[in-house]
Amino acid sequence: MEPQLSQEVVDTAQAHDGPIETDAVIVGAGPVGLFQVFELGLLEIKAHVIDSLPYPGGQCIELYPDKPIYDIPAVPVCTGRELVDSLLQQIKPFGATFHLGQEVTTVQKQDDGRFAVETSKGARFLTKTLFIAAGVGAFQPRKLRVDGLDPFEGSQLFYQVRNPADFAGKHLMVVGGGDSALDWALHFATRGEDGTPKARSVTLLHRRDGFQAAPASVTRMRQLCDAHDMQFLVGQITGCETRDGRLSGVEVTGADATTRVVPLDMLLVFFGLSPKLGPIAEWGLDIERRQLKVDTEGFATSVPGIFAVGDINTYPGKKKLILSGFHECALAAFAAAPFVFPDKKIQLQYTTTSPKLHKVLGVETPVFD
Amino acid sequence: MEPQLSQEVVDTAQAHDGPIETDAVIVGAGPVGLFQVFELGLLEIKAHVIDSLPYPGGQCIELYPDKPIYDIPAVPVCTGRELVDSLLQQIKPFGATFHLGQEVTTVQKQDDGRFAVETSKGARFLTKTLFIAAGVGAFQPRKLRVDGLDPFEGSQLFYQVRNPADFAGKHLMVVGGGDSALDWALHFATRGEDGTPKARSVTLLHRRDGFQAAPASVTRMRQLCDAHDMQFLVGQITGCETRDGRLSGVEVTGADATTRVVPLDMLLVFFGLSPKLGPIAEWGLDIERRQLKVDTEGFATSVPGIFAVGDINTYPGKKKLILSGFHECALAAFAAAPFVFPDKKIQLQYTTTSPKLHKVLGVETPVFD
Repeated sequence: MEPQLSQEVVDTAQAHDGPIETDAVIVGAGPVGLFQVFELGLLEIKAHVIDSLPYPGGQCIELYPDKPIYDIPAVPVCTGRELVDSLLQQIKPFGATFHLGQEVTTVQKQDDGRFAVETSKGARFLTKTLFIAAGVGAFQPRKLRVDGLDPFEGSQLFYQVRNPADFAGKHLMVVGGGDSALDWALHFATRGEDGTPKARSVTLLHRRDGFQAAPASVTRMRQLCDAHDMQFLVGQITGCETRDGRLSGVEVTGADATTRVVPLDMLLVFFGLSPKLGPIAEWGLDIERRQLKVDTEGFATSVPGIFAVGDINTYPGKKKLILSGFHECALAAFAAAPFVFPDKKIQLQYTTTSPKLHKVLGVETPVFD
Repeated sequence: MEPQLSQEVVDTAQAHDGPIETDAVIVGAGPVGLFQVFELGLLEIKAHVIDSLPYPGGQCIELYPDKPIYDIPAVPVCTGRELVDSLLQQIKPFGATFHLGQEVTTVQKQDDGRFAVETSKGARFLTKTLFIAAGVGAFQPRKLRVDGLDPFEGSQLFYQVRNPADFAGKHLMVVGGGDSALDWALHFATRGEDGTPKARSVTLLHRRDGFQAAPASVTRMRQLCDAHDMQFLVGQITGCETRDGRLSGVEVTGADATTRVVPLDMLLVFFGLSPKLGPIAEWGLDIERRQLKVDTEGFATSVPGIFAVGDINTYPGKKKLILSGFHECALAAFAAAPFVFPDKKIQLQYTTTSPKLHKVLGVETPVFD
C-alpha cells in the first residue's frame, strides 16, 4: 500500500539521548530535497533529511510515480519513481540520514546561532543550517467534511491504519475508490496474511461504481460481495448518528438522492493526501502567498542560516520546475558553506576534473596526460 | 578526427535568398544552447542554432567527450558525449535548424525591433529574440607564438587541414602530441585512404616524447620512423627562417637546449582549441569581466530581446554549472515569450500532465481515471 522504490532507503535515524548535532537539516525528501544532499555533499557538508511521508520522493512518488516526466534536462523521459531512484543513487556517496514519517514541529534559533529542530516523532537536532525543500507542504490525508464527525477522529474515524487489530470484530465501513481503500477493505473482509482477525462486517462506500484501484482488487472485491463476505455501496456520507457519545452510524446518500442510515463501529476514509504548509508558517520566515521569499544569490530566506529551495520558495521569475529546484540547491549549498565552515574559502570545483570531488564521490580520478 | 556522436546531427540549414525570418536564434550548441531549444520548444518557439564548431556539444565534446560528469541532476554519471546525445534526443521533437562551423559576425537591431544576425558563412537571419549560450566563447585553434610566423598563416602555416591536396609532395612539419597531430602526420606519411598523395617528407615535432594521442597511433608513428617514412623530433619551435618572402625553415630547440634549423615547405600546428569571446564583445551588451550581465528573473541582457544563458552570463551568486544553465534556459524562454507572442498569456504547464505539451513533444497523453 505504499510505493515501491527499486532502491531501498533505510530510515537510519537512531534513538539519541541528546539532540543530534549536525551541519545541515533538510526538510523534505522530494527530488529537490534529495539533490540538496548532493550539492551539500560536494562541499563536504553532511545532512539529515526529514519528511512527513514514510518514503523519499515527495510529490513525484505520491502523485505521479508511474507517469512520464519529459523536462528533466538530459533525461528525455522518466517516471516519478525513476527520477527518485536516480537521485537516491546519485546521493549514495554522501550517506545522508533519513528521518521519515515525521514532520518538523519546531524550529528555534539558539544563542550560538544554531537551530534547535524537533519532529513529531521526537527526533531532535542542533543544526548550523536548515534547508526547506518542502514543496507544497507536508502531505496529509484529505479529510471527510461532515458535520459532527471530527470528534470521532482517532477513536472511530481513521485516515490510516496504524494497528489493524483495532478493527478486528468490528462493523467497518471503508470509504474511497483507490488502492488504499480497496486493499484495506479486502484485508478486513478476509483473514489478513499476517493472521489479523477479520472485521465483523465490511462495507465499501465509493461515490461511483468505478475505481482507480488495480483491476484485480476490484474483481476480488466483487467476488467477496457475491459471496456475501462484504458489501459495496455507491454513495456519499452526508450525515452521522450518535448514541451515548459514540458514532453509531452514517447517513449515506446514493446516486438516486435517497438517504439511508448505515450502522457501523469504525469508519476508515481514504480520500488521498493533500499538502499542508503546516508549522513552517510559524517559523517567523518571510512568507508571500504561502511561499517563502528568497534571494536568487543563495536562496536564503529572511532568517540567516535558513534556505528554501524548490516549489516552496518564491522570487521574481520563479517557475515551479524541478530543474529550477536543482539549480537552487547548488547555489544554496555555496551560500550555506560559510555558516558551516566560517574560516574556509569555498571554490567551485568540477566533478569531471577535481580529485577532491572524486574523493568525496568515492570514484577514481582518471589519469590523463 | 572529429568527435563521434552516436546520434547524427545534420546541418539542416538550406541556402536562402533573403534572410531567414525566425522567432529565436541561439548562439552556441553546447549543452545549454541545446536545452534552450527544448525550453523554447515547450512554448512553441522554433529556433535556429549557430555554433563555431562543426558539431553540437560545445566544451563537453571539445574538452571532455569521454570523461565522466557526476553533477547532472538525476544522472549519477555520464560522459560529455552521453550528455550531448541525451540532449539531442530530448530536443528532437522541436526540429531546430543547426548552422554549424560558423560564427556570428554581426548583430544589428532593426527598426521593427528584430535583430539582423549574420554568420561567417553568410547565413542571415531576422529574429525576434537572440539567446547567447556561447559558453566561454567560440573555440578557435590555439596559435603558435613565434616572431615572424604569423604572415605565413594560410599559405604555409595552418591550424587545420581544409584541403589535404595542398600538402601533397611538400616537406611537411606537423606540431603537437594529440590525436589531430598524430592522425594527420600518419595520413601524410602514408598514402591516405582516399588516395591523397603523400607529403614529400613528414616531421612530427612535439615538446616531449610522450603523447595524448591514441596508443595505436603512437605505435604506428614509431614504426614509420623506424622505416624512415617519417621522423619524430622532441623540441619546440623558437624561431623561423625565410627566403625570398617564403618560410624556408624553423628553428627547433630541443630538450638539451641546442637549436637547429629544420627546412620545410608547410607547417601544420595542432595545439588544441581555445575559446575567444570574439565579436560578442562588440554587440553593445553590458559586459563584466568577459561575462554578459543578466537579471535573474529572465536572464535578459542589457539589450531587450537578447538573453544570455550558461557560462557566458554573470549575476550575483553565479556558478558556472551546467545545471544552472538549464534553469536559466527555462526562465529565459518564459521571459522571451512576450517578444514572440506579444498578445498571448503564457502559463506554466507540466510535461507530466499537459495534453498541449504532450502534443508539442509528440507523445501520447495517457488516460487516467
